[in-house]
Amino acid sequence: MEKQIKVAMGLEKADLVLKGGNVINVYTGEIEVADIAICDGYIAGVGSYCGKKEVNMQGKYLSPGFIDGHLHIESTMLSPSNFAKAVLPWGTTTGICDPHEIANVCGEDGVDYMIEECKNVPFDGMFMAPSCVPATPYENNGANIDAKGVDKLLQKCHGIGEFMNAPGVIYCDKDVMDKLKCAKAKGVVVDGHYPLAGNKELNAYIGAGITTDHECVDVEDACNKLRRGMYVLVREGSATRNLRDLFPIINSKTLRRLVFCTDDRQVHDLLSIGHINNNIKIAIEMGLSPIDAITMATLNCAECYKLNDRGALSAGKIADIVVIDDIYKFNVLEVYKKGKLVAKDGKALFEAKVLDNKKVRNTVHCNDITEDDLKLKINSDKVRVIGIEPHNVTTTSLIRKASITKGVYDFKDGLSKICVIERHKNTGNIGIGLIEGYGIKNGAIAVSVAHDSHNIIVCGDNDKDMAIAASEIKRVGGGMTAVHNGKVYDTLELPIAGLMSDKNIDYIATMTAKLNKFAYEVLNVEKEVEPFMTLSFMSLVVIPQLKISDKGLFDYQTFSFVDIEVKE
Amino acid sequence: MEKQIKVAMGLEKADLVLKGGNVINVYTGEIEVADIAICDGYIAGVGSYCGKKEVNMQGKYLSPGFIDGHLHIESTMLSPSNFAKAVLPWGTTTGICDPHEIANVCGEDGVDYMIEECKNVPFDGMFMAPSCVPATPYENNGANIDAKGVDKLLQKCHGIGEFMNAPGVIYCDKDVMDKLKCAKAKGVVVDGHYPLAGNKELNAYIGAGITTDHECVDVEDACNKLRRGMYVLVREGSATRNLRDLFPIINSKTLRRLVFCTDDRQVHDLLSIGHINNNIKIAIEMGLSPIDAITMATLNCAECYKLNDRGALSAGKIADIVVIDDIYKFNVLEVYKKGKLVAKDGKALFEAKVLDNKKVRNTVHCNDITEDDLKLKINSDKVRVIGIEPHNVTTTSLIRKASITKGVYDFKDGLSKICVIERHKNTGNIGIGLIEGYGIKNGAIAVSVAHDSHNIIVCGDNDKDMAIAASEIKRVGGGMTAVHNGKVYDTLELPIAGLMSDKNIDYIATMTAKLNKFAYEVLNVEKEVEPFMTLSFMSLVVIPQLKISDKGLFDYQTFSFVDIEVKE
Repeated sequence: MEKQIKVAMGLEKADLVLKGGNVINVYTGEIEVADIAICDGYIAGVGSYCGKKEVNMQGKYLSPGFIDGHLHIESTMLSPSNFAKAVLPWGTTTGICDPHEIANVCGEDGVDYMIEECKNVPFDGMFMAPSCVPATPYENNGANIDAKGVDKLLQKCHGIGEFMNAPGVIYCDKDVMDKLKCAKAKGVVVDGHYPLAGNKELNAYIGAGITTDHECVDVEDACNKLRRGMYVLVREGSATRNLRDLFPIINSKTLRRLVFCTDDRQVHDLLSIGHINNNIKIAIEMGLSPIDAITMATLNCAECYKLNDRGALSAGKIADIVVIDDIYKFNVLEVYKKGKLVAKDGKALFEAKVLDNKKVRNTVHCNDITEDDLKLKINSDKVRVIGIEPHNVTTTSLIRKASITKGVYDFKDGLSKICVIERHKNTGNIGIGLIEGYGIKNGAIAVSVAHDSHNIIVCGDNDKDMAIAASEIKRVGGGMTAVHNGKVYDTLELPIAGLMSDKNIDYIATMTAKLNKFAYEVLNVEKEVEPFMTLSFMSLVVIPQLKISDKGLFDYQTFSFVDIEVKE
Repeated sequence: MEKQIKVAMGLEKADLVLKGGNVINVYTGEIEVADIAICDGYIAGVGSYCGKKEVNMQGKYLSPGFIDGHLHIESTMLSPSNFAKAVLPWGTTTGICDPHEIANVCGEDGVDYMIEECKNVPFDGMFMAPSCVPATPYENNGANIDAKGVDKLLQKCHGIGEFMNAPGVIYCDKDVMDKLKCAKAKGVVVDGHYPLAGNKELNAYIGAGITTDHECVDVEDACNKLRRGMYVLVREGSATRNLRDLFPIINSKTLRRLVFCTDDRQVHDLLSIGHINNNIKIAIEMGLSPIDAITMATLNCAECYKLNDRGALSAGKIADIVVIDDIYKFNVLEVYKKGKLVAKDGKALFEAKVLDNKKVRNTVHCNDITEDDLKLKINSDKVRVIGIEPHNVTTTSLIRKASITKGVYDFKDGLSKICVIERHKNTGNIGIGLIEGYGIKNGAIAVSVAHDSHNIIVCGDNDKDMAIAASEIKRVGGGMTAVHNGKVYDTLELPIAGLMSDKNIDYIATMTAKLNKFAYEVLNVEKEVEPFMTLSFMSLVVIPQLKISDKGLFDYQTFSFVDIEVKE
């Protein structure tokens, strides 16, 4: 403290001074030409300063480091340190990370791995204790984190991650109440996840101490949540892009309660449009003042998550600073993390260090999968079918006439089959359903990234290819694969919990592009559908409408399993 | 938690529902016609609800309880429970209270007394651990609270009170650093007090973890503090009224960083214009939107002080609710504290309970005071004189020609004499000075409320009356008295630490009015000067320019003692 005070007072030289930049002031909405003095990784002062090292910032704009209000690193398929390499060049210096995915595979060990690997890189992953492991009782996963487990995790976590089990909250499930009481006692933030909640439900949910929501898809939903006291996290993910729809909620009154997040963003987006910088850029393009947009990505998020040590360029804050060419063009030139230059011209200046943690590897545990295992035996031809909604993680519940031969579904109706194969504890469970709008021909696609329990999902138009694809996933210990006419085309291995690669972003981007291209061009997957990502969300039963887990078809409206056959 | 959730969900009846009022929403800036359901003292929901008891609020406006961002209860001369009775009817349900005054007399015992008495009444006094006991090394006080003491107090206090010792911060005084490190480690708020700080000094001060300031007197000072990252507390006290001057700083960007406070407010103001409601009212009269003004008094203050359980009308917040007739007229009709009606039509519906705590009584310890003790012996007639600045606590440092007889000041020049008599530990110290602009004739006024060490201050135009007045203060164990031609006119006894009465607001108002009237009409004190309060601030050496302590005349600019005689 003394050293920083002396630097602030001008009695000692700063370690580094960024000289004469246009300093963005999120407290007042002003832009001020000033120096930023940095000492021991913290901002010592903003004004006129000398440093042991000085960098001319004239004409450039300096912003606080961007904070992503809610994300799952696992969704990028990058390990934490490779993720950091990917987002730092875009200006994201802090992320509120919910390791919900890996926790559903590996439990506390998974959370530990994420925290530990993050320590190797100049990125502050503020990890939330996953609240829903398992996500629901409606699927088998790899671990269980009860209230005691959450309590333990809160020794190393920043708060509690998204509470997808909204029914558990509003109907006072015992374990849910214990988790929330634990958060309340510790005074930590609890993230929400409650799309389209009714007013009474919202009151119950918020009153239970859940203060954020990133699931707003329309203005009415977002306004209701703001009114009842929530921070609304405006999401631009890869699958779910809500910023344009939610833009009308942003005004001078609501601004402080609005935060940006990405939730789930894929590598191709990280390579092309970036990360939170892209949320900011879109908001500016839509007409928001650049400083307001930056405030949403910095101060607002820091306040929302009680991060008093960041979110603004002022004395005492961590020196996380993004250098931008122009507040409208919004190209990130350089990024300082804790006062060190860590990215320049789109390149990270540090190396990823993927931990070889045995506890998060070799996580696929299931029997060999045969064609027979995947057969769908039905009597009635009037069936419930999952209807894909392009560009969305929600589905519709359709009624269709299925083609049957000798009591077995035979694919002749042009629908695809989707199976969820339990892969954590070898239960032998396989959920089998039908899906419309995927359009696969002469092949199968399989993936071990399958929200939220990350069993193996396989989708295809014949049982043989489906069995080959699922077996390939088992063979490599998790990944993404495409099979055509009885042959594996290629596989992206995801050895970390079956969710993440230990390779870098370029490799993952190349492999996913290759697999996607094959899926579209050879397997004829619908152009409006993301071949792998869409499948990954088909088991997410906490999102409407009809989904499938290893235990069977699940209807969101009744929040219960339903038979594939529609009884008259 | 379960019960509140059930009420929120409409599955159980609320304890109380305020029906159909115009609910002020500080999150969105809207006014919504809605019911507020209350359960166990907390808001369970806002919407449409049924209750065991229902109160029709149609046409009325419902605001979150007002929070005073910074105040010294002692300045009202009311004990905490009588203070609560005085402010609750005006809508103040929470106060960030700095027991700096009583701590300078009684130390930790004084803080304990304030906290304990507050527990008897429906008012949340969030007490800050006084940072400056003694306020400076330049005066004798009754106690010492070092860094260890602050650490201990933080077990029962909310944060650290105003850090008046700004030089101690920016020049890294060891004990000051220890206090600030303790606050940082505990993550608590530290209040500032740094009028007209320079930019480098502000960086140093803020970087040390001090996040608020209530001493801004002009727009430039306030803007500088906002820019550098402080919350600015816009003060309307009795002696210091800054809101009109600071009004231009309020805009849609800065609003969230602005908070209302009263600091020091006298009983006559509490009876006539009220408390934080008056800050709000003035801001509205000046053109601020009523909801913005209310937001400053509620949500902003709650955020500034990390009070997550209040500041808005939403589920999970304490049911502190102010019922107002009209958002422009702004008359407070009723006040609910923790869901209970505690004030109606300007009257508190509860009783004060003044604690008979021996540790805060009988606190005047000094020798008998004689005329001789107060004589000012000087050789040169060119003297430094304290210049009163009407309506302000600052003074000027004047040079005047003093009238001397046989080496002793003889009053013939029309100046008044001011003495500060140490009264805590019987040191025998008496600081003697001259003052211009007070105008007293044929008498003396004495008071044991004397910031910040609360020695006895006496001012008069003859030594005899001054000695009588000081002796009267000693006799009653602290208070305010007026003496005319050798006789005590009347005395307001302040038995609690020599600072507070155990009587109610009406008694104090009557007595102070009576004493003030006498001071003006009989003793000829200048009309532009508050006879007692002005004296109380003459020993406040942390405020410019020339002040006096029991150790002598003190100059703010050099921050050192100066001789009364001006050497050529």
